[in-house]
Parts: sequence; structure tokens; C-alpha cells
Amino acid sequence: MMLDEAIAEIRPLDGAAMAEARELHGRLTKPAGSLGVLEELSVRLSGLAGVCPPPLPAETAVAIFAADHGVHAQGVSPWPQEVTAQMVSNFLAGGAVVNAFARQVGASVTVVDVGVATPIARPAPGPAATPGPQPSATPTPTPAPGPQPSATPAPRRPAGPEAGITAPGAGRPSPDGSPRLVSMRVRDGSRDMTVEPAQTRDEVRDAVEAGLRTGYELRDRGAGFLVTGDMGIANTTAAAALIAVFTGADPAEVTGRGTGVDDPTYARKVAVVRAALARHAPDPADPVGVLAAVGGLEHAALVGFILAGAASRVPVLLDGVNAVAAALAAVALAPDAAGALVAGHRSAEPGATVGLDRLGLPPLIDLGLRLGEGTGALLALPVVAGAVRVLHEVATFDAAGVSEK
Amino acid sequence: MMLDEAIAEIRPLDGAAMAEARELHGRLTKPAGSLGVLEELSVRLSGLAGVCPPPLPAETAVAIFAADHGVHAQGVSPWPQEVTAQMVSNFLAGGAVVNAFARQVGASVTVVDVGVATPIARPAPGPAATPGPQPSATPTPTPAPGPQPSATPAPRRPAGPEAGITAPGAGRPSPDGSPRLVSMRVRDGSRDMTVEPAQTRDEVRDAVEAGLRTGYELRDRGAGFLVTGDMGIANTTAAAALIAVFTGADPAEVTGRGTGVDDPTYARKVAVVRAALARHAPDPADPVGVLAAVGGLEHAALVGFILAGAASRVPVLLDGVNAVAAALAAVALAPDAAGALVAGHRSAEPGATVGLDRLGLPPLIDLGLRLGEGTGALLALPVVAGAVRVLHEVATFDAAGVSEK
Repeated sequence: MMLDEAIAEIRPLDGAAMAEARELHGRLTKPAGSLGVLEELSVRLSGLAGVCPPPLPAETAVAIFAADHGVHAQGVSPWPQEVTAQMVSNFLAGGAVVNAFARQVGASVTVVDVGVATPIARPAPGPAATPGPQPSATPTPTPAPGPQPSATPAPRRPAGPEAGITAPGAGRPSPDGSPRLVSMRVRDGSRDMTVEPAQTRDEVRDAVEAGLRTGYELRDRGAGFLVTGDMGIANTTAAAALIAVFTGADPAEVTGRGTGVDDPTYARKVAVVRAALARHAPDPADPVGVLAAVGGLEHAALVGFILAGAASRVPVLLDGVNAVAAALAAVALAPDAAGALVAGHRSAEPGATVGLDRLGLPPLIDLGLRLGEGTGALLALPVVAGAVRVLHEVATFDAAGVSEK
Repeated sequence: MMLDEAIAEIRPLDGAAMAEARELHGRLTKPAGSLGVLEELSVRLSGLAGVCPPPLPAETAVAIFAADHGVHAQGVSPWPQEVTAQMVSNFLAGGAVVNAFARQVGASVTVVDVGVATPIARPAPGPAATPGPQPSATPTPTPAPGPQPSATPAPRRPAGPEAGITAPGAGRPSPDGSPRLVSMRVRDGSRDMTVEPAQTRDEVRDAVEAGLRTGYELRDRGAGFLVTGDMGIANTTAAAALIAVFTGADPAEVTGRGTGVDDPTYARKVAVVRAALARHAPDPADPVGVLAAVGGLEHAALVGFILAGAASRVPVLLDGVNAVAAALAAVALAPDAAGALVAGHRSAEPGATVGLDRLGLPPLIDLGLRLGEGTGALLALPVVAGAVRVLHEVATFDAAGVSEK
């Protein structure tokens, strides 16, 4: 029901605001079209906000949805399953790449457990699980104001009784801006898609609701950009299956090497995707059914997160192949949700490119990243904010007294 | 002599620091190679600094070198020449795209007049030449600390007697962080390369020294990243000529449509470059001679700025086609200067791609920008800083207790 309400709230882009943005671009002190892709991006964001210029958010939130995958048992990843829980601890300690990039661009980090199969250890309060002292002679830049500012260069997870898993309630940044864990575990990982459906329909809906709640709460707390993140050993196998279903591509075209698999593992991965699709024959017109058959709990949660952004007219920056898989499902549920999407980057995973082509989204960063976590989308954040800022701050030819052609 | 001293200080990258960075990347909590281009970038920056991790700068400075071009008389641009001076005023008022992007990423802006042909008007203290009030309901992010912080969302050029052209002395940020103008005018624009050499060798050396001084002073004031900027109506014609000489490419391959020229103007532009090269037959083994024959004063100044960065082991982020042209000249003077260069973006100008290929630099942003001013390089700044930050802040597998493959 929460899902249906979100879908009902999603509207097309506002043509009047888009026309206003295009007209404004023609009057700003720069040659027409000289900002390339950023001009159309700023036009779309005006259409999403329904006003030109669209808001220039002070706060950005990345939500990392974490879950495990029964299909891991098929040997599709060289990493042990417990790495999912270990990396969640690393996120909470501030020691992962997503934390470093979030500090770089001034974003808060919320980790949402929707289905981690093994126990999540509380990060050690000592130096063990936290980044070391800054070897730089110069101070590190302070992130932008918002829920994330920290007096110390590298936020550490606070020690003490509050440092563990928090009570339910999504996206509540901790008082000192360090990452927080929200537990909305639907089950201990999805089932093995090669032997049974990965989830029940009810589990899909629960995970989607976890994503919706996360998105709404982060929005209510001031986030003007929502950034997708994900963690789940073996989740690129599920992502490939989802992308194959929603685009009609062959599994071999959309399955990649994920975090780094050798040739035999890659061949097994493609065969696993193919077998799962043959077993379930998922119908792309039934997105909840597709997610139930071959999706991960974090993919379902990402669908909710994306729909929360679209329903709230808040831009959602997509990270890599897992976000793209979820975006295809979200757009299958609510076609106008596409208007809220910004492709943060082009992942090295082939399925990401196939999916972005289908979504019609040009990636802003294209540097061969294949890490997930939200890292690629965070790198794109200043580009998106810069595109919006131009509409707010750049002078017109008239006002600046600059001659035109 | 100042140029010779800078060249003598430029050294190759430090192999030991690079090896240390590669080894560290293998221990950080991410799959090997999963950060794509950013891994090798961080390795190169370690080699430049001679230490791993390299410094994570708190301050970044963009220097916009402005000059006019005698070749404008040949009708190679649809814009009147006085737009150069008008845009300098716009930079000082904070109303150009480069100002918006500098605020987005927390960089200071220094405008260096090395050869603007028409008078530079002091920006009006009123609203005329400054950006309008922020229509956003949310506050704009504050830039990173450094010389640039401003209490107001959109810095305005202060009114009053200090607001005009400052005394010589490069790169001194104003007390309130607004952009400053430094006058080191060599002459009122270069000469028309189709009828005589654009500059004398002495003028080239004066302009190179202006760039060297700017780079050293910004470094001394704490800038840990130097970003190239340029302004000069008709300067893409000079850039195309420089790139043709240093790469051996045909003028038609490296001449673009600049800020937007129609077909007849484009044909004339290619013919002008071809005629200038035929007249002077510049020798790429004599970079000062090449700059004298067909370069702009801002190109010569950018050569100095790049060499100042390389001599100081400070990374230089290259903007578009004018920066690439200058980088080719800088590397012709001092081949090891290439180690200090980071290609901020791929300009839509074809000469930029030809030049970057020759320099062996992968562009970090590729969004079809063709504005100049430093805009493309500023968008890449968070990516470069993020690459460095990973080496400082990301936990190792051992420290974080994360299992390896």
C-alpha cells in the first residue's frame, strides 16, 4: 500500500519549468550549449522540481542498502559471504571508499541492513577498524554543512553503548555526523534463485518499504539529493538477471566480472543467470514478480528508495550496476520515475551500460569504477550540484554588460 | 632566466613513492583495480609528491589568464574583442560559470591580465553585474575552508576604492574571498599571426614569467592544487595552431568551433591556422619560437603556470583546449613536467583530444563542455581529491577485519 501510494504521487516533469530553464540558459554569460550535458541536466532538474532554478540542496545523503544472496552458494563470487557484514562494519567505522568520497563531497552516510545473513560486528572503538591519523601536513577540507560536518578529519564511529545497531528509524544521522546503521532486516539474505524464488512477494514489498521509508526520512531531514549505495557479496549476479529481464538482453551481454572473478567463475556466473531465468521465466510486466524471482533484498529496497525520491521530486543519483537494475524495476512500476534519475557514473559492469541505454541516461563520470557502495555516484555529486548552481548564480549578458555575438 | 631555473627544478616522478602507492592499493578494503582510473591517478600523484600518500590539499586555486588576439581581425570568432575585458569584469563580479563552479568545489579565483586589449571596467557595486539573490529555499553549501570562504551564498565583488584593479602581486586572494585581478599585462593583445609573429621572444618570456610568478605565489599561499583557466576571444585559433605544431596534426584535425562559429567562419578559421603555419614554419624543437609565432599571451602565461606547478611538485589540473596547447609547449620545454599534469576534462574542441592523446593523459570528465575559463577542470577537482583521499583514509583488510578473496 505504501508502494502504491508512492507510485500514485509520481508525476511527469514540469514542461513550463523546463522551458524556463532553457530560456534562461540562452541569456547566461556563456556561449549557447557550451556546458554540454550539464545544460540538459539542469533543465531536467528544473522539470523535476517544477521550478527554475531548482533548489540547490545543502544536504546530500547516501543510503547503502546491504543484503546477502542465496545464489552465493553457486560459487559466483570469490569473496566469502561474511564480507557483506564485515564491510557494513567498515562503513560504520568510516573506513571504506564510500566514506572517503562522502567526506570529500559532504554527504551523510546511512547503512540500511535489509538482509545481511551474518552478524554485524560493532566496529572497534580503537584504531583497528578506523582510518589512521592523517599523514597529510595540510588539514583536510571540511565537508559542506549539513548532518555530516565533523570536527575531526576522519569521522570515527563513536564508542560506547550507542555505537552499535540503532533502533529502527531510517536515515537518522548521528549527532557527530558519523555513519549510522539502520536495521530493517527482512530476512537473512535472499534464497538461491537457481533452486527457488529469491524472495516471496511479501518480502519484496517489505524491502521496498524499507527503501521508501529510508528515502522519505532522509528527505524530511533535509537531503536534497539522494544517492544510491549497495553492499552484498554476489549481488552483481542478481543485478545481471534483473537487467536481462527488463531489457531483454542475453545474460552474457549483461553479466560482468563484478569485484573480480576469473574465467571459470565468470562462465559459471553467466550459466547461473541463464538457469535462473529459465526456471522462473520472469515477466517484465510484473516487476514485483521479477524482484521476487531473481532480485536481491537490496535491489528491492533500492526500488523503494528511488520511488521515494521520485515521489518527493528529489533527484536520485544512481551508482553502478545494482542501482541501474533497481532503476529499471522502479521505472517498470512507475515510468515517470525516470525523471528523477541521474546516472552518476558508468560502471565497468556491462549490464550498467545496457541498463543506462534503456533508461536513456547519460553517465556523468566514466572512469572504469566497479566498486559499488555509492562511490561512483558520489563522485558525480559536485557535477550535478554545479549544473544547478549555474542557474542560480551565473549573470545574464544584460546584467553583466557583456556583449553578445 | 626565471624560466630556465624552473625547468632545472623539474624532476621525474618518484618511483619508490609510486611503488608504495600501488602496494597500498592492494591492501585497502576494495577489490583490486575497482577504482579504475583513480588508482593510477593516485599513484602518479604519489610519484609527483615523492611520498605516499601525497598531501591532501585544503586549498585549490584557479588562475584565469586573460589576453586578446590580433588574429581576431581575421574574423575567426563571432564575438567582439571587448568581450574579453567584459568577461574579466564578470569574473571579478563573481557572475561567470567559473565562479559558480569555484564556489561549488571551494577554489579561490585569481584573474591575471597578461594582455587584455580593451579597458577592464570595474564591476558595478550594485546588483547589475552580480548574480541575483538566491532563489533557493535552502542555503547553498559553503565551500571548503581556505582563502575562498565567504559568509554570503554568492560572493560579490566588494564596492569601494579597493574593488578595482589591484597592485601587481599574483594570486593574493582578497580578504573576503572574492575573486581578485592581478595586472601583469605584457602588451595590449598579441599581433595578427597571419601577417607577423604574434609576439616577440621577449614578450613570450615576460608572459611565461607572469605565469610562473602566479603559480609560485598561489603555491606559497597554500594552494595544493593549481587549476588552469583562460579567457581570450579568438584564443582557440591560436590553440589550434599550437597543437598543430606540437603534434604534427593537420590544422583541420585540431581546429574546432570554439564558442560557436558557423560553417563559413569555421572554414576561415582553418585557413587562418594553415596560413599562419605556412608563413612562420614554427619549429616544435623551439617552443619559445612557436609561442612567439602563433601563440597567445595567455598560452605563454599558462606555460609558466604549468612549469611552476611541476617545479613545485604541485598537481596542475588542465582545463580545455587552451590549457592542452600550453601543456604541449611546457612539456616541449621540460618533458618531466608531464608528471604534474592531470587532464581535468575532454573539451568538445577536437584539438584537445589530439593534444591529450599526445600527452598520454586520460580526461576525468567528458561531458561536452567547451566553455574554457577553468570550468571543466574545476568539475574534476573532487575526483582528483577523492583519489588522494582514498590513500589517506581507507582502511586496510587487516585493520578493518575484512576477509580477502
